[in-house]
Amino acid sequence: MENTLIRQLFRETDKFASKDVKISGWIRTLRASNKFGFVEVNDGSFFKNIQVVFDASLDNFKEISKFAISSSISVEGELVLTEGGKQPFEIHAKKVVLEGKSDADYPLQKKRHTFEYLREIAHLRPRSNAFSAVFRVRSIAAYAVHKFFQDQNFVYAHTPIITGSDAEGAGEMFRVTTLDMKDVPRNEEGNIDTKKDFFGKETNLTVSGQLEGEIFALAFRNIYTFGPTFRAENSNTARHAAEFWMIEPELAFAELNDYLDNAEAMVRYVIKYVMEHAPEEMEFFNKFIDKGLFDRLNNVVNSEFGRVTYTEAVEILQKSGHKFDYPVEWGIDLQTEHERYLTEKIFGKPVFVTDYPKDIKAFYMRANEDGKTVAAADLLVPGVGELIGGSQREERLDVLEKRIEELGLEKEDYWWYLELRKYGETKHSGYGLGFERLIMYLTGMGNIRDVIPFPRTPGTAEF
Amino acid sequence: MENTLIRQLFRETDKFASKDVKISGWIRTLRASNKFGFVEVNDGSFFKNIQVVFDASLDNFKEISKFAISSSISVEGELVLTEGGKQPFEIHAKKVVLEGKSDADYPLQKKRHTFEYLREIAHLRPRSNAFSAVFRVRSIAAYAVHKFFQDQNFVYAHTPIITGSDAEGAGEMFRVTTLDMKDVPRNEEGNIDTKKDFFGKETNLTVSGQLEGEIFALAFRNIYTFGPTFRAENSNTARHAAEFWMIEPELAFAELNDYLDNAEAMVRYVIKYVMEHAPEEMEFFNKFIDKGLFDRLNNVVNSEFGRVTYTEAVEILQKSGHKFDYPVEWGIDLQTEHERYLTEKIFGKPVFVTDYPKDIKAFYMRANEDGKTVAAADLLVPGVGELIGGSQREERLDVLEKRIEELGLEKEDYWWYLELRKYGETKHSGYGLGFERLIMYLTGMGNIRDVIPFPRTPGTAEF
Repeated sequence: MENTLIRQLFRETDKFASKDVKISGWIRTLRASNKFGFVEVNDGSFFKNIQVVFDASLDNFKEISKFAISSSISVEGELVLTEGGKQPFEIHAKKVVLEGKSDADYPLQKKRHTFEYLREIAHLRPRSNAFSAVFRVRSIAAYAVHKFFQDQNFVYAHTPIITGSDAEGAGEMFRVTTLDMKDVPRNEEGNIDTKKDFFGKETNLTVSGQLEGEIFALAFRNIYTFGPTFRAENSNTARHAAEFWMIEPELAFAELNDYLDNAEAMVRYVIKYVMEHAPEEMEFFNKFIDKGLFDRLNNVVNSEFGRVTYTEAVEILQKSGHKFDYPVEWGIDLQTEHERYLTEKIFGKPVFVTDYPKDIKAFYMRANEDGKTVAAADLLVPGVGELIGGSQREERLDVLEKRIEELGLEKEDYWWYLELRKYGETKHSGYGLGFERLIMYLTGMGNIRDVIPFPRTPGTAEF
Repeated sequence: MENTLIRQLFRETDKFASKDVKISGWIRTLRASNKFGFVEVNDGSFFKNIQVVFDASLDNFKEISKFAISSSISVEGELVLTEGGKQPFEIHAKKVVLEGKSDADYPLQKKRHTFEYLREIAHLRPRSNAFSAVFRVRSIAAYAVHKFFQDQNFVYAHTPIITGSDAEGAGEMFRVTTLDMKDVPRNEEGNIDTKKDFFGKETNLTVSGQLEGEIFALAFRNIYTFGPTFRAENSNTARHAAEFWMIEPELAFAELNDYLDNAEAMVRYVIKYVMEHAPEEMEFFNKFIDKGLFDRLNNVVNSEFGRVTYTEAVEILQKSGHKFDYPVEWGIDLQTEHERYLTEKIFGKPVFVTDYPKDIKAFYMRANEDGKTVAAADLLVPGVGELIGGSQREERLDVLEKRIEELGLEKEDYWWYLELRKYGETKHSGYGLGFERLIMYLTGMGNIRDVIPFPRTPGTAEF
């Protein structure tokens, strides 16, 4: 008999009602008396379990009654609608076969476990309710991102992971090497002989694909990246990981507002897509993880994002009367407390803060006329703070070269980035979205370690 | 006036015919007389250029006539249908504005360049016909892969890039470190003090996400990965890169044939999707890169893949009478010459070779009853050779443990992989598809360096 996915039984119940079906899956719970028993089976295709009823008419009734949690079984039986029952239907088993037994010491018994404990068994936690919901939403959200951009003919660019470029400058890097670390080869000056390394030079893990993304935008007009990025920063916070996935769209013939419009539409699209395609999982988050989740997400879907300049934002914060730990004055990098106050108390919805002081932003952001600010914008969202950062890029060769010199950077390191401005520059803008931040926002999960399958943080690279 | 993408003009010509439109893009060619001129403009949204006609009635006619190749311009004018013309339509310009000039030394003039030369200007090559076609097809193929799996509710799993696991064993690895390589810290025994490294242990770049993929398959049933993988192998061939993208699907409650069915459907789906969504690009490849391309791809779409056991394949090769450089006998690892002979001469279509000798395959592949072979299968395709490798996984704890011991591996290194067999094992199977190989196959491009935006090979990590 053909196997049916439990997802199909839930989604197309009519088709299977009162018919014999066969399922395979893992036992989530089992209780039995002398005469009959109930097994809840999950096959991974669907968030919910299906209830299987079995009774003493089965040859192996006693054996079944003792199956351990997490054993894998196959079940044949009739799908019976249970009007008024807790479940919409159940399977009345005609045959139950053990596929793979589970040891009695299975660490994920029904009782609740802390998320901290579950991180230690990251090979089993996707079988728990919470993490099966998180990682299915992660998958669906990733697809929604692709779909949003592909439907508009954006080109997906795979920017390099190993980079020989010194130009990214967005944070501490991991070195990538094949040199023998026990006996590092030296050149005549006594320095590391990087010519002997695999790539003939020093290489690191990328901190951003943006600069290469600009190459693609200046060929394909509208592009996006979606890949892993790395920061070798010793920050042990709930929002930082050493390895995370980023989405970096880049739009040519586009000013700052075009990035804002695109980012706003994208965030809204992904939220709607996930709510529609993972309703059971989202219900779970709203009920058990973050009771305000649906209100928050619906608010985002239904309201226009705010837009305020940095200068206005500083005035608003100063006039608010609120006492911040870190005092607000023009020129400071906004702290999380400021960002959250703005988005949660002042606006009560997502808000773009634009036109930051140039001294706190990267060299490639486009200088505004005022000589003090750049055409940058961050998206702040309630509950999370900064979700997106981006800018219009400096497309004017002379202005960019001057800025690189001002900051003491080497023009040679940026030769190809500068050439993009030499051969048909255009206004262009782009942004970066930390995918894990988006998943935290979508699910209400509070720790980045719990939205990545196998988190890498200082001191931790298990699995 | 609103900007229109050139893609829209080609795809929805009727909507814009005889109307005024505005486009922006880069000049691909320009020729002008004293009275009028023609500019071919490409805006990156579409493979083809649009022809713009301008004449002396424009104030800046003389200036336009001298615009350099690759300058970015915006054009307003009427979209005029040109019945019987080489182009289906052109724009009669009413206004042409220079957005960004290009220097006269622009390296991508109209004349043909070698692919080798274009690799050196990887920041400009996406603006050439060939590479704009390659990288758009790459983007569309990536999306087709996602769509194929997501439409069947497979869960997309982000397996880790930095791995602390010694267990992958699929090839030479790159080390990832934050230790000071000029002065590597030592422990009391004089060895590298890996406790001082970022993750407190030795870490490397992943060579495969399969083992972690199995974790997800044993929770979600059907999953796939799609991410970068790395090999620190000093192979300077047209088919090897140090950084490449892999797709690794894994199916639970699935035997070897289930993997074959899934892989066959997937390859066919991606080919059809790309032919449908990038017809101009595919036409270009068929015409200029590989004249047999359409025949080959149509053959794949329309014929069932062959399936043959390794043992049968060896017999077929031996009986073929063909003289191979490397003699064929049972037990050898098939060489490219054998693989290509099988798929090109014997079958004339893609063929799965199954049930290889266990000694030439990985420890995790499921032992067959004969004691000599394992339930592995590789997909060989005409023109490329091996496109996919995979197997049913050994799910029997005792058999797997014995195999690990036989091979002199450490069971401790595989603790979580073994636990997957302890807590509800199921038959499961999976495979790995090198994404660049697929793109080579789809486009007819002969060198892996020309299907990755920024290739990483021994001695090369530019951009």
